[in-house]
Amino acid sequence: MTIVVQKYGGTSLSTTKRIKEVTERILEEKRKGNQVVVVVSAMGSSTDSLVEMSKDVSSHPDPREMDMLLSTGEQVTSSLVALALRDQGADALSLTGEQAGIHTEETFGDASISFIDTPKIKVHLDENKIVVVAGFQGVSEKGEICTLGRGGSDTTAASLAAELHADRCEIFTDVEGVFTADPRVVKEAKKIPELTYKQMQDLADMGAGVVHPRAVLYAYRNNVPLFVRSSFDQQEGTRIDHFREQTNVTGIAVEKDLTCVTIIGKEKTNLSEEASAMIKIIEAAGIAIRRALIIEDRYSFSFIIQSKELKQTYSLLQGRPWISKVSYENRAAVSIVFSHERLANVSNRLGRILMTKRDRADIIFHSPRVWRIIVPEYELALTAQLLHDAFIEKPNLSISL
Amino acid sequence: MTIVVQKYGGTSLSTTKRIKEVTERILEEKRKGNQVVVVVSAMGSSTDSLVEMSKDVSSHPDPREMDMLLSTGEQVTSSLVALALRDQGADALSLTGEQAGIHTEETFGDASISFIDTPKIKVHLDENKIVVVAGFQGVSEKGEICTLGRGGSDTTAASLAAELHADRCEIFTDVEGVFTADPRVVKEAKKIPELTYKQMQDLADMGAGVVHPRAVLYAYRNNVPLFVRSSFDQQEGTRIDHFREQTNVTGIAVEKDLTCVTIIGKEKTNLSEEASAMIKIIEAAGIAIRRALIIEDRYSFSFIIQSKELKQTYSLLQGRPWISKVSYENRAAVSIVFSHERLANVSNRLGRILMTKRDRADIIFHSPRVWRIIVPEYELALTAQLLHDAFIEKPNLSISL
Repeated sequence: MTIVVQKYGGTSLSTTKRIKEVTERILEEKRKGNQVVVVVSAMGSSTDSLVEMSKDVSSHPDPREMDMLLSTGEQVTSSLVALALRDQGADALSLTGEQAGIHTEETFGDASISFIDTPKIKVHLDENKIVVVAGFQGVSEKGEICTLGRGGSDTTAASLAAELHADRCEIFTDVEGVFTADPRVVKEAKKIPELTYKQMQDLADMGAGVVHPRAVLYAYRNNVPLFVRSSFDQQEGTRIDHFREQTNVTGIAVEKDLTCVTIIGKEKTNLSEEASAMIKIIEAAGIAIRRALIIEDRYSFSFIIQSKELKQTYSLLQGRPWISKVSYENRAAVSIVFSHERLANVSNRLGRILMTKRDRADIIFHSPRVWRIIVPEYELALTAQLLHDAFIEKPNLSISL
Repeated sequence: MTIVVQKYGGTSLSTTKRIKEVTERILEEKRKGNQVVVVVSAMGSSTDSLVEMSKDVSSHPDPREMDMLLSTGEQVTSSLVALALRDQGADALSLTGEQAGIHTEETFGDASISFIDTPKIKVHLDENKIVVVAGFQGVSEKGEICTLGRGGSDTTAASLAAELHADRCEIFTDVEGVFTADPRVVKEAKKIPELTYKQMQDLADMGAGVVHPRAVLYAYRNNVPLFVRSSFDQQEGTRIDHFREQTNVTGIAVEKDLTCVTIIGKEKTNLSEEASAMIKIIEAAGIAIRRALIIEDRYSFSFIIQSKELKQTYSLLQGRPWISKVSYENRAAVSIVFSHERLANVSNRLGRILMTKRDRADIIFHSPRVWRIIVPEYELALTAQLLHDAFIEKPNLSISL
C-alpha cells in the first residue's frame, strides 16, 4: 500500500481553527486509500514562548533541559491534530518521537537521527490508523529526549518517508512552493515547479527557509520525491526529484539577521594565528560561522554569524588580552545559486551588475555553484532585486555580460 | 542518606518569578545535606488552557490523546525548575514520568501506579543531583503516556517518597496547612497542626482539596510522614502521621460545583430498576456519582455528580424512552468528619443544628466517621459556618446536644 508522509509547519497549525482546516487535507489524502503519516511542528510561536520562559529562569540554559522543554511543543500539536482527526470520525493517534521509534545521537539541541525503528509506526498504519508524529525530536540510547534543531520537523518527515519507503513526502508551509527569490523581498519572484535535490539543497543552505537542508539530503539519499506546498490553498507547489537540470540559474536565496563581527588587535601585530584560534573556539561552542571570514588587513579580522548568537559570541571574546576593540554591524546575505558549476568570471560579472547601483559588495565564492554577496541589512532588497532582474528576469542578458 | 520529597502545586509555580522563588526553598533543603526529589505540577492554569484547546478541536476528546496533551504541562514545569536550579549553581535535572521509572496501569486519564523502577532516580541522587520529576504521569507497559487524574502530582510525590524510603514528603501549596474548614468559606477556621492519615483521608475524600486522598493512602501504607505547607511563607504547616487521635471532630470539608440531577419517569411506574441500571451506565462511563442517590419517591430519582461532568451525563440520558423530564440544580456538600466512629444519634443532632437556620437539609450517612449535608450552592457558606461553630468553636455544646 502507498504511504504518504505529510509535514505541517507552525504557521499551518498556529490556531485550533487552522488545526481543523489541516485535518481536512489529511483526511483527503486518507480517502484516496493511502496510508498517511503526519509530522507536525509546534503551534505558531509556542516554541518562542517556551524559549522566553527559559530565559526568565536561566542565563545559560542547559541544552538537555531545553530539549525537555521544547519537545513539549510538538507533543501538544500532535495530540491536538489526532483529537481533531478523531472528531471527524477518523482513526488516528499521536506519537512522541520516542513512541514513533525515532532514535538519535545524544547531542542535545542539534541531534541527528541514528536509526528509526519503523515497526513502531507500521503496526499502527497496518491497523489503518492515521499516525501523527511529534516532529523535531527523538530519543537517545539512554532514554534522553533530544531535539533535531530548528527546522527539525522537516528532517523527521523526510527520514520517516525514507525509512517507510513512502511514495512521497509533502512539506506543507505558508507559501505556495519554492520561488526564484523570497517573494516578500522580490516582487517578481516566480514559483519553480521542479527542482533537483542539489538545487534545493543549495537554496536551502543559503537561507531559503522553506525546507531544511538536512531534510533534502535524506530525501535525495533515499530517492523520496519531496513536495513543498501551501497548506492554505490547493496549488501544486514545487516537486523536488531526480530531474535533469534545465535552467542556468536556480534562484536567489536571502538570509537575514546576520551580524558581521570585526575584531581589532591591540598592537600592530599579525593576528592571523589568533584569528584562526578564535574561530575554532567559536565553532567549538556550537556557533556557526556563516561562511565568511574576511581578513580586512593583518591587524583586524571579521566574520559573520547569525545575530541570535551574538550574545554567546561576545562572551567568548571577553577577556582576550590581544583584543583592542570589537564592533558589530547588521548584515544580510544574498546568494545566487547556479544549476551547474560555473567558475569562470562569475565574480567579475556579479561585480559589474552590483556596481551599477552600489559602491561596494563583499562577493564570496561559496562553492562552484553558489556565490554569496554580503550587504548591510538595509540593502538586502535592492541587491536581491538586482540579481533577480539580471539572472532570472533577463537571463540571456546576464549570461552575455 | 536522608531523602526528602517535595511537591509543588500549580499556584506555587504559576509564573517564572514564582519558579525562581521555589528554587530557593529547594536549595535550602539541599544545603541541609539531604537528597532532594522535587515533584511538580503544571504551571498555574496551563492545564486548563490545554483542555480548552482540546475542546476547540474535539467534541468528545479521546482519553489517550488527552493524556499525550496534558502530560506536557508537567514536563514544561519540570524542565523550567531544573533550569532555575542549575542557574543557581545546583546540579539538577528534570525527568518525565517515564524517565523517573513510574509505571502505571493503562487507564488513560485516571491511571494508578503499578510500580516504580527506583534505580532510575537513585542513580541521579547518588551523583548528588536534585531530581525534578514531572508529576501526574507515568508510562504503561506498552509505552503509552498515562496521567494519574487531577491531583495526581500528590500521588506521584507520595508514592516516590514511599518507594525511595524518604524521610518525609512535603506537599507545598498556597495555604498554610490543613484547616478545620476551608478558610475562604469559614473565617474562623484554624490550622490543624497534626492529623492522622485516616483523618486526612476522610477530609480529602470529602473535598478538602489541599492534598489528594490517594496520596494520603500511599503515605499511610508506607509510613511516610506527610507535611502540608505553604510555599509562600516559612510556617510549619500540618503534619500527617501515625498520631493518637485527640480531637472529637477533625474538621468540616466542603465540596463545590456539584449538580443534583433529578429524573422523572414517563408514567407512574416504579423506576427503581431503571434507576440502578442508569447509575451503572453512568459509572461505567467514568463519571463518579458523588455518593448520593436520593430516591424521592418511586416515580422519580436524583443523584449528585460533579458539575463538570454534567454534559457527558446528559448525553448518556438522551433517548431513554422511560424518561419524561430531567432537571438540574446546583448543589454543594458540607461534610463533618469525626475523628472516631460516631453512629449514635448524629443525624438528629445535625438536623437540630441545621434547623435553627434552614428549612431543609439532605443529611447523608457517608461512613461511620463522615456525615454529609447536601445544600444548594448559595447555602454552602452558611451551612459550613453553622457546623464549624457548633462542632469546632463550641465542641462541648454540640456534643451535649
